[in-house]
Amino acid sequence: MSSADSADAEQGRPMRLRCLCLVIQAPDDLRVVEHDAGEPGPGQVLVEVGFGGICGSDLHYFHHGGFGTVRIRRPMILGHEVAGTVSATGPGVARVKPGDKVAVNPSRPCGECRYCLEGLPNQCLDMRFYGSAMRDPHVEGAFRNLLVCDEVQCERVAGHVPLQHAALAEPFSVALHGVQRAGALLGKRVLVSGCGPIGALAVAAARIHGAAEVTAVDLTDETLVIARAMGAQVTINAVQDANWSERFRADKGTFDVMFECSGNERALRAGLDAMRPRGVVVQVGLGGDVAVPQNLVVAKELSLVGSFRFHAEFALAVRLINEGRVDLRPMITGAYPLARAREAFELAGDRRRAMKVLLDFAAEAA
Amino acid sequence: MSSADSADAEQGRPMRLRCLCLVIQAPDDLRVVEHDAGEPGPGQVLVEVGFGGICGSDLHYFHHGGFGTVRIRRPMILGHEVAGTVSATGPGVARVKPGDKVAVNPSRPCGECRYCLEGLPNQCLDMRFYGSAMRDPHVEGAFRNLLVCDEVQCERVAGHVPLQHAALAEPFSVALHGVQRAGALLGKRVLVSGCGPIGALAVAAARIHGAAEVTAVDLTDETLVIARAMGAQVTINAVQDANWSERFRADKGTFDVMFECSGNERALRAGLDAMRPRGVVVQVGLGGDVAVPQNLVVAKELSLVGSFRFHAEFALAVRLINEGRVDLRPMITGAYPLARAREAFELAGDRRRAMKVLLDFAAEAA
Amino acid sequence: MSSADSADAEQGRPMRLRCLCLVIQAPDDLRVVEHDAGEPGPGQVLVEVGFGGICGSDLHYFHHGGFGTVRIRRPMILGHEVAGTVSATGPGVARVKPGDKVAVNPSRPCGECRYCLEGLPNQCLDMRFYGSAMRDPHVEGAFRNLLVCDEVQCERVAGHVPLQHAALAEPFSVALHGVQRAGALLGKRVLVSGCGPIGALAVAAARIHGAAEVTAVDLTDETLVIARAMGAQVTINAVQDANWSERFRADKGTFDVMFECSGNERALRAGLDAMRPRGVVVQVGLGGDVAVPQNLVVAKELSLVGSFRFHAEFALAVRLINEGRVDLRPMITGAYPLARAREAFELAGDRRRAMKVLLDFAAEAA
Amino acid sequence: MSSADSADAEQGRPMRLRCLCLVIQAPDDLRVVEHDAGEPGPGQVLVEVGFGGICGSDLHYFHHGGFGTVRIRRPMILGHEVAGTVSATGPGVARVKPGDKVAVNPSRPCGECRYCLEGLPNQCLDMRFYGSAMRDPHVEGAFRNLLVCDEVQCERVAGHVPLQHAALAEPFSVALHGVQRAGALLGKRVLVSGCGPIGALAVAAARIHGAAEVTAVDLTDETLVIARAMGAQVTINAVQDANWSERFRADKGTFDVMFECSGNERALRAGLDAMRPRGVVVQVGLGGDVAVPQNLVVAKELSLVGSFRFHAEFALAVRLINEGRVDLRPMITGAYPLARAREAFELAGDRRRAMKVLLDFAAEAA
Repeated sequence: MSSADSADAEQGRPMRLRCLCLVIQAPDDLRVVEHDAGEPGPGQVLVEVGFGGICGSDLHYFHHGGFGTVRIRRPMILGHEVAGTVSATGPGVARVKPGDKVAVNPSRPCGECRYCLEGLPNQCLDMRFYGSAMRDPHVEGAFRNLLVCDEVQCERVAGHVPLQHAALAEPFSVALHGVQRAGALLGKRVLVSGCGPIGALAVAAARIHGAAEVTAVDLTDETLVIARAMGAQVTINAVQDANWSERFRADKGTFDVMFECSGNERALRAGLDAMRPRGVVVQVGLGGDVAVPQNLVVAKELSLVGSFRFHAEFALAVRLINEGRVDLRPMITGAYPLARAREAFELAGDRRRAMKVLLDFAAEAA
Repeated sequence: MSSADSADAEQGRPMRLRCLCLVIQAPDDLRVVEHDAGEPGPGQVLVEVGFGGICGSDLHYFHHGGFGTVRIRRPMILGHEVAGTVSATGPGVARVKPGDKVAVNPSRPCGECRYCLEGLPNQCLDMRFYGSAMRDPHVEGAFRNLLVCDEVQCERVAGHVPLQHAALAEPFSVALHGVQRAGALLGKRVLVSGCGPIGALAVAAARIHGAAEVTAVDLTDETLVIARAMGAQVTINAVQDANWSERFRADKGTFDVMFECSGNERALRAGLDAMRPRGVVVQVGLGGDVAVPQNLVVAKELSLVGSFRFHAEFALAVRLINEGRVDLRPMITGAYPLARAREAFELAGDRRRAMKVLLDFAAEAA
Repeated sequence: MSSADSADAEQGRPMRLRCLCLVIQAPDDLRVVEHDAGEPGPGQVLVEVGFGGICGSDLHYFHHGGFGTVRIRRPMILGHEVAGTVSATGPGVARVKPGDKVAVNPSRPCGECRYCLEGLPNQCLDMRFYGSAMRDPHVEGAFRNLLVCDEVQCERVAGHVPLQHAALAEPFSVALHGVQRAGALLGKRVLVSGCGPIGALAVAAARIHGAAEVTAVDLTDETLVIARAMGAQVTINAVQDANWSERFRADKGTFDVMFECSGNERALRAGLDAMRPRGVVVQVGLGGDVAVPQNLVVAKELSLVGSFRFHAEFALAVRLINEGRVDLRPMITGAYPLARAREAFELAGDRRRAMKVLLDFAAEAA
Repeated sequence: MSSADSADAEQGRPMRLRCLCLVIQAPDDLRVVEHDAGEPGPGQVLVEVGFGGICGSDLHYFHHGGFGTVRIRRPMILGHEVAGTVSATGPGVARVKPGDKVAVNPSRPCGECRYCLEGLPNQCLDMRFYGSAMRDPHVEGAFRNLLVCDEVQCERVAGHVPLQHAALAEPFSVALHGVQRAGALLGKRVLVSGCGPIGALAVAAARIHGAAEVTAVDLTDETLVIARAMGAQVTINAVQDANWSERFRADKGTFDVMFECSGNERALRAGLDAMRPRGVVVQVGLGGDVAVPQNLVVAKELSLVGSFRFHAEFALAVRLINEGRVDLRPMITGAYPLARAREAFELAGDRRRAMKVLLDFAAEAA
């Protein structure tokens, strides 16, 4: 493709590049649609996307057409966890050059609203986050083999890092932001409940942040094996060991910090039971209403703290991946070409068989 | 009484003083019972109790025999909000002397457990809090006209402060602790939901802590009038103005900090709706389970923080009362002699007619 | 003047308004210079300046031509503490209208640099602060009877507030920012050293922020009288009572928080001596090198925290002044017409006779 | 020895064990003195000391008879960094048993003073820290082949950990406490100045706490090699590269956090120059007076934070060593028998040749 590019350039007028995009047309209706790739303008970059990870929100659009009050009202390109190779750069681009591997930050705050100016860009009032139907018109996603994005969205990935790993920079950023929300973790006893991709990455993030000990709870042994590979010293299957929290209740409770990544009420309640006084529970998973035992929160003076997306953590995630401070191999279930996207989405929804399922855009293009 | 004391001492053997105590015998069964007053041992003080405030937990014992899992299993003297006059002092007492007005701190942490040594005495594993059935044998309360307590529990009240006001040092401490849990308030926009005694005092505490503006929400106009007298600039009747939170929703929300003092689910949910991103909700009121909209907590990255009792705040409360930095007059509904305790308890439970109802132990003794 | 404005408008071409400005030409060389007043463009406001407070940095320019490495290299209009009345508004101005009293925020961060986007506009890399020679060309100041500024710089002052008081919003903002840097003050014992305008206002700010007790130290009784009027309960003359810190040394020290507003080494050292372990010293005054006893800082684990200018505190300052939560009358020494500016500057530099000296621009214009 | 012990026990009366202690008699006068070993009372443990690390304060006693205002007034056993093997236990000891390897915490706060009850035991008003002349009579140290200590001072060392490493638990605790004082480090850019034992361990501690990048500065290449081995990515020799801070000055500065472990004024000043706004400088090294550029501290709103000893960090240090999360091999210069203590002390004082020099008490006993 990049050779085609230069060939066209020789003829004086660029051939418009076509690219293949994965579109959610309606619930349960995924389609591969051809679009104009676009060209990188000033400060922009054209990326040949290598891999894209399927996220829980992608699955919600696929299965239910949305979540909470968010609904797709018209077809939308899915995807926000992608990495690839810079193919061309627009005027004024200096930090990356063609051939560079990059992870693409899907978060595009406005930089001008009150929250952006308070240092809270993840709370931007005019956020354009890839593959999100929160606003209408929806913001198109990045599940496409060619993507024009802003240079500032690109973080350089080291040559030795597989693009499959780089595609996990986004969910890893979510986990790192969750970990930041808890404050200093050095020497703390940490509980992670719900070991899907975010939870498993939160285990790694908590260890990197200095947690003394990480205990992981989930409903399936398969995910707990991965949580252990990501750094959990203790794992608990809450199906087989339903009253597990009782073991951690002595002296009002054990854990200093909990990362609740399941969005499940029972998981949250068991965790609250096991928290020590003044413990901090970071809610990372997005659920609906949950019945919280107010008397526990009050009597133990617990803090429940929400964590939403990320910002500066994206660059940090790439850095930690580049430096080998996190080993993402246990996270990756497999990669599927676009043509088998439906199969990939179905697998991604099966917690017993899948942790992170990727789409392989290069395979598609080939 | 102190003259009787010395008269006895002259005869070589002290006459044991008798005192009248308000005992909860069973739900709905309050009795005035005569007990031996006891004598102040080393480091102890005998206090002639002037007034005692009736608290929500006293009402729960009266109406339901307890709250949550806490139940009275045998008769217990009620009460933990008292102030009086030092009548006699035991050996080694230096900070107070007979005749001093004092507010009595009902919180008696052990000073040796892990939480005491972490600076969290309100989380003491061996707490003996007055008038509490949390442990068995229960800890007797302070609704009695004579009370032997430790010198360290006594905070000196200035001569110009009425003992009725000094009796409010305890609930004011609860409010001040809640306010401390929120961190710095200088310039913040504050919401107080639930304007019973704790809520109304939280309004004052928030103002003293530098809040720029306090908005108070309650279900009755009578309490809102008092909230305003305590420092609220804006008051909202949530019955008449059921969708009040909608006015505060622009740009993701308005309030920086909320003190939830009602324990009511609707109040909490409306408040969450009105909070700005990264806002802090301090839960002071003790309720049961509440259904919390997890998506709001996550998406706005709110913090829900429990606040339980107090410790260092008791001395601060007395200091602020002594210096006139809080005006407690609007808080006081009236004072009843022990003989009319039942009437006082019934009044205290009626939010339209009562804010803080006191028992008058001096009237009783006279 | 505003009528002249409209008269010109009728003739089709506006008469350019002339205004009088106070210019520092060179050290010890103050001049009143006539300039074009300018016109309010979109989002801008023309303010008839009422009063302007003389600040320590104005005095440094006057006496020494600058401070530290900052020097005036060409003539510059001085002044950054002004309040006045809106005279005309440019297109798109909505928050203020002609006739409104306003305090003018002299701080103009770029809104685009990394610090602005981190919520630290006072650390802006491209700050244009009124009357500052930190950059070259210098940023002109606000000591002028007519001033065109951005609407966003204007905070509305309540009708009952004298403009003399409103002119103190800027130094009060500096004090409030210092107080914010200390974290929560509720119940804390506070020491303020150096009771010039910033120190005296820090006394008031600390009280508003909930300090239990404020002790003020200075070298002259005259300023201590004002510090007491601003809320200090204890005042110490460090000349007469040179070893004052010894009284506060028991149990490793007394004060939780210190606001060092003198920039004086002896004052800092005495304060460090009187601080309790983990105490926080906020350095507000700008001095040169000071010899700090590292062993005290380490052994007591003190924190020394710098505080520089302000941002959100400006609106808060005006609000607190509007609501009467601070009484600024004791702060004001007197007001002088522009023609007597030299006299005013000389008085302002005499700590025995002057707290805050103002220039009266209305007097000048009349 | 433990067999001798039981042999004595069989005879019905214990033979008093003798032990060899390293005593500082006067400046430059180290002596090996025989003392009664003592016996473990209730809750106590007899430890056969394996190794003891020589600390900077030991060197100060040796060379100068003390530091600051602290002076030895009578002979004192030195040493506070020791590890060994439990040889016998007194009544009621449950956490350790004979044969267990332990690191001995030299910090013995009273558990009753106001700071102990505030959770600040390192600020205890009645601290008895091993080998310290801060109080008189001095507190004897742990450079002795047999040591009776409290069970609570003992942290169990894993079987695979060499006792030489376990002896570093104490200085590692100092470094971990320093790192805790900085707050969360995840993703931060960290500067460590002064790479003696505390500095080199601070490098490791900062990495464990999640620092994105650690830059180490020292005056000798030999220590920088070790700092790199402990986790520094960048090292700077401040002798050869005297103006190094200029490279980090862009946009007001680079580093988020600095650990100043040299106590050297030039090092501190260069670091302040390289810090970014709102950066935190933790002062770990104990120096005398240092001239601090107040204008930098104020204008960049830096925080200088003292760090003194440790408490909970001791258990954490042992845990991290046990789990292999820190590799202490690069730290250890060598071990010398007691008979060669003078030689060991002289070596320990030579920064080019020595990092941590140990005394080998087992060698002595053999």
